[in-house]
Amino acid sequence: MKITAVITTIVCCLAVSGYVYAYAGDGSNLWLPGPEKGNASVLLSAKSTPTTDIAVRELSDYWNGGKVLLEIKKDKESKRDSYRINKSDGTTTITAPSDIGLLYGTYRLLQMQQMGRTSGDIAISESPFHDIRLLNHWDNLDGNSERGYAGRSIFWNVRGFPDAIGENDMAGIANSPLNSEKYARANASLGINGTVLNNVNASPKMLCTEVLEMAAKYADVLRPYGIRVYLAVNFSSPVVVGGLKTADPMDKEVQKWWKAKAREIYDLIPDFGGFLVKANSEGQPGPMDYGRTHADGANLLAGAIRPYGGIVMWRAFINNPTDPDRAKQARIEFEHLDGQFLDNVIIQVKNGPIDFQPREPFNALFGALNHTAEMPELQITQEYLGQANHLAYLGTMWEEFFDEVRQYADYTRHQLSGRYNAIAGVANTGTDADWTGHPLAQSNWYAYGRLAWNPNLDAETIADEWTSLTFPELNESQHSTLVSMLMRSREAVVDYEMPIGLTHQFGDSHYAPGPWDNRPIRRDWLPVFYNQADADGIGFDRTKATGTDNTSQYHPDFGNVMEDISSCPDKYLLWFHHVSWSHRCQSGRTVWEELCYHYQNGLNEARDLQRQWNSLEGAVDTDIFHDVKIRLMTQTRDAQWWKDGSVLYFQSLNGMPFPDFLEPPVHTLEECKNSNLNVGLYRSPGHEELNRVR
Amino acid sequence: MKITAVITTIVCCLAVSGYVYAYAGDGSNLWLPGPEKGNASVLLSAKSTPTTDIAVRELSDYWNGGKVLLEIKKDKESKRDSYRINKSDGTTTITAPSDIGLLYGTYRLLQMQQMGRTSGDIAISESPFHDIRLLNHWDNLDGNSERGYAGRSIFWNVRGFPDAIGENDMAGIANSPLNSEKYARANASLGINGTVLNNVNASPKMLCTEVLEMAAKYADVLRPYGIRVYLAVNFSSPVVVGGLKTADPMDKEVQKWWKAKAREIYDLIPDFGGFLVKANSEGQPGPMDYGRTHADGANLLAGAIRPYGGIVMWRAFINNPTDPDRAKQARIEFEHLDGQFLDNVIIQVKNGPIDFQPREPFNALFGALNHTAEMPELQITQEYLGQANHLAYLGTMWEEFFDEVRQYADYTRHQLSGRYNAIAGVANTGTDADWTGHPLAQSNWYAYGRLAWNPNLDAETIADEWTSLTFPELNESQHSTLVSMLMRSREAVVDYEMPIGLTHQFGDSHYAPGPWDNRPIRRDWLPVFYNQADADGIGFDRTKATGTDNTSQYHPDFGNVMEDISSCPDKYLLWFHHVSWSHRCQSGRTVWEELCYHYQNGLNEARDLQRQWNSLEGAVDTDIFHDVKIRLMTQTRDAQWWKDGSVLYFQSLNGMPFPDFLEPPVHTLEECKNSNLNVGLYRSPGHEELNRVR
Repeated sequence: MKITAVITTIVCCLAVSGYVYAYAGDGSNLWLPGPEKGNASVLLSAKSTPTTDIAVRELSDYWNGGKVLLEIKKDKESKRDSYRINKSDGTTTITAPSDIGLLYGTYRLLQMQQMGRTSGDIAISESPFHDIRLLNHWDNLDGNSERGYAGRSIFWNVRGFPDAIGENDMAGIANSPLNSEKYARANASLGINGTVLNNVNASPKMLCTEVLEMAAKYADVLRPYGIRVYLAVNFSSPVVVGGLKTADPMDKEVQKWWKAKAREIYDLIPDFGGFLVKANSEGQPGPMDYGRTHADGANLLAGAIRPYGGIVMWRAFINNPTDPDRAKQARIEFEHLDGQFLDNVIIQVKNGPIDFQPREPFNALFGALNHTAEMPELQITQEYLGQANHLAYLGTMWEEFFDEVRQYADYTRHQLSGRYNAIAGVANTGTDADWTGHPLAQSNWYAYGRLAWNPNLDAETIADEWTSLTFPELNESQHSTLVSMLMRSREAVVDYEMPIGLTHQFGDSHYAPGPWDNRPIRRDWLPVFYNQADADGIGFDRTKATGTDNTSQYHPDFGNVMEDISSCPDKYLLWFHHVSWSHRCQSGRTVWEELCYHYQNGLNEARDLQRQWNSLEGAVDTDIFHDVKIRLMTQTRDAQWWKDGSVLYFQSLNGMPFPDFLEPPVHTLEECKNSNLNVGLYRSPGHEELNRVR
Repeated sequence: MKITAVITTIVCCLAVSGYVYAYAGDGSNLWLPGPEKGNASVLLSAKSTPTTDIAVRELSDYWNGGKVLLEIKKDKESKRDSYRINKSDGTTTITAPSDIGLLYGTYRLLQMQQMGRTSGDIAISESPFHDIRLLNHWDNLDGNSERGYAGRSIFWNVRGFPDAIGENDMAGIANSPLNSEKYARANASLGINGTVLNNVNASPKMLCTEVLEMAAKYADVLRPYGIRVYLAVNFSSPVVVGGLKTADPMDKEVQKWWKAKAREIYDLIPDFGGFLVKANSEGQPGPMDYGRTHADGANLLAGAIRPYGGIVMWRAFINNPTDPDRAKQARIEFEHLDGQFLDNVIIQVKNGPIDFQPREPFNALFGALNHTAEMPELQITQEYLGQANHLAYLGTMWEEFFDEVRQYADYTRHQLSGRYNAIAGVANTGTDADWTGHPLAQSNWYAYGRLAWNPNLDAETIADEWTSLTFPELNESQHSTLVSMLMRSREAVVDYEMPIGLTHQFGDSHYAPGPWDNRPIRRDWLPVFYNQADADGIGFDRTKATGTDNTSQYHPDFGNVMEDISSCPDKYLLWFHHVSWSHRCQSGRTVWEELCYHYQNGLNEARDLQRQWNSLEGAVDTDIFHDVKIRLMTQTRDAQWWKDGSVLYFQSLNGMPFPDFLEPPVHTLEECKNSNLNVGLYRSPGHEELNRVR
């Protein structure tokens, strides 16, 4: 049965000159189309649904390239959310097997128009690589957002939490039609089709009926945009919320509790996506508290929601080390469980083996499981890359990751082998006017979405797209300047924070430098553990020959190259090797010179980012210009702290003179050590004023 | 009658290797000879005096170049403190018309030995250019030192002052034989022959009998070294100390009081040098309070001490402007009084017409008086050149001054025309272990002394001498590095503080930048008055054509060059001209670019000073190295504040983009404005610890 509804809408073009318009200065519009200017007739050749309604409305509002036909064509070969766009003879047709495919095609077409790529004929066929494309919001019910640097949670603001969930209040998108729509549009425009509404360090109260009812409201808002709701759950929920005596996965009452809870959830949210679980990690409860395995725990939840089509994403960020090398831990802990997980369990693995550092090789767990689905967890929020103060476009970092797993972890084969094919990104959204704190950090939300759809896209293409969509007012040379800024930015952070394979050199805040940090806490939380620096040398020996044998965890094509110091690239040198300060790098410089070179280069690059941005004054909105300018200023100051603190600390160990090219420090080591907290907590001047809450 | 005393002393050489030795790390030894190593026989062919005793002792302790003969030869042609040194056939003879000449010759010979210049024959004849070579100590009885940045007063620490002068206590050199001797030796080694013991903002109580008795003790300590004591006096002393109703110079009682006071002083200090007076300036009382002139006031004091051979140094730093251009004021105020002063009055004139700025043209009062002696007042303490935190060797600044007055103010002729021939330098001494706060600021005390003796010496020669004497441990290349640092240092300060003729851009502290300062106080105390910057241009118009006609105050050879914008050198451009931001400088850059260029260059130079100093690690004493290193670090940070604050403020007026070569600011204008106090007050880290009080 096929019903064809024909809706023709013509909306007058607003008074904007051509296609070029500047958005409001608060950055709230993201990369979405600006002031309405649609003037086209839109024909829907399909049953009207809330989703097709949105597609038609978006086209009516913004498309001005003539007639558009939206058509559903079922096609067993094609994924449900794929689409085709064809334009010839002035008519554009979007074809898809489903309404959501039509919506995705619609957004793509509008983006092409914003980028000025719709003048000639079009013939596009798009199908997503990952089927499940998720945002993970580390948001707490009390309104705080863990590792969020853009204000407060956009979902939760439960007054009186945790004592009084009953008298609750939902802040953020659900209370604001404009913003809930914008959040949904922004995600749908990238193809993001799921969102975990709360922190992986999950409150058990998340599963209270009152909170589930709130989640259901979000689900209703997001559903028409093809976005499913997921929840992070606490493994102890049966005890805390259910009043049981145990959360042991083998306990019948526990199993019954989860089944009942699943039923309750699906009654409220029929298309509920599933659970995300952080268990037996950093103090969170889990099955091992009861002598069970990760598989036992994951299967408990997976079994409860399997009847409804839900999935369980079980995180492999374990962080309770049983091996002296934390980098090996995830693979050690999960490889032997392969085959024991139910088929709706996905192991969610951070891209790198440590923790979202500015540069890490890929986690050796990728490609290691033959009977269990795996999904990458990327971090969009810049916990370790300058938070909301620094510019760090992560497209380049993720491109590096996908290049590696494609080449050395059989990523493509694994993901397409019939198992769940998913990806998650830890969101950088908050209540700041521009959603992301740093206006240019919107590019990371965008880049994540694009790579979730197609991990083969290169970072520069994405940066180019985002810049065109977000700053259409720039001329060609200004556009190139901004793209160039994005493309250089992450390497700059690597350079001034932790070059040539150093990792986790942070103070407590995960912001300020702390290479000297040697407090009496767990060794594998300490910078000195990761740099292993002393009078003679520096670096963490992960070789088979003399170290932790992390290299053997990898495919030989990767592991052997890393094992051999003569082939290990400089960028991973101190990750895999402990070397003397006078060791000669591939660059020709000694390790000491190479470190100094990169720290200095990072500072120079930060200055150059300022210089590049300043050249855009007058070309971009004044408020945005000023906001970013101040943040870049802060970034350069921080780069100076990082450079000074790092070279001074390492010099205090090796006693070697600074190379001539190093700008002498302007802070003492003592000042760097003491500045830790202040640097970590300061926000860029004017931040409060700039980031007026939406 | 001629008595010849022959004293032969042989002192064994201490266990030092050759002539190269490093001094104790506290810098307290200044440029004086280090550990004793004399091994020569010294013959005095003259009547023994306390002064010849010192000469003999110094040679006995430190000279190891064979026999030395000290001989007094009266000679009407020669100045009393001139000397000759001749060395041939292994015997060295120092000849002078007086014992002090012998002592000066002795120090010179020892310096030549320290510099390794005594191996061959020697034939030197030296006679000082200025007859009166003074230090002015701006020290208060309560122990504070105005514009002192090296601790507290070395002379005064009167407990309970000002209420209880009776129960006094003299701190500093008089209480420490070692330090009183070192202060005297240091000055005598340069030929400094007078010292004003107290601040020009003088307490009337300075003339209390109790305080005069203290001054007499200092006079006793300094006398053998040829150093006379002078006092700064308050014009109201007859009222405050004497209990009179007026200090009117025409009042008979007042005249009587000063005569009696003079007698009292000369009873205590028979060789008392005279008075220094700051009158009717910055709130100080003076003759104009009674409708009298500077001449009336000066003559009152001059008359009182004339019978004893004393002089009055009457300061021309008036600072109660009657002309809209403060630069013209000194000449306006004193020129018409020429001829009215007694012959023992000297007008003491700051080198520049404003106030000890990093760069000023010479004061137009120089050369303007035909019947009155004038003397320059130089400022050794770095009130406006980074105080004790920045390296600024002032030899180059003073060389510039002497070059100008020699060329355009007939300095040589005036000074040698039979009138008093004097010079004063405002001391940079304090109770810090190294005397001067910044260890390298000792070079300014040294340079002042050398130029007071011979203003034709060039700055580099002096820097070279001082470096050889103070850091004999440096090899040739290290020596050159330090000399190069000194030689570049003042221009670096000019560049980051106030380039191309800008002046007095300071905040309240005379340390931090304040180009925006526009408080409701006297206009001619404000940076905005001196920069005259607005949207269109910048600079103070002192031309005859359109400005204040300051140029006509100068000799035409100078004034005409300054008047004509095409010949006015860039370094004085904004001093003499108000120009548009796009005015083309002689450099080829616009004024805006030129300003930015210099601010940036100043910052770059500060960094390079750090780099140069760091290359001396291990070569100089560890404590001194660390101390200077920290100060240079502070200097670079300050240079950053100066550069950022200045370019941001001027940009806020002219709206012009920064040139590409300018490193983008890392502080906001608001931060620069707010940092004023903090920057002004902070001392380099570790300062308290480093500057242990002697």
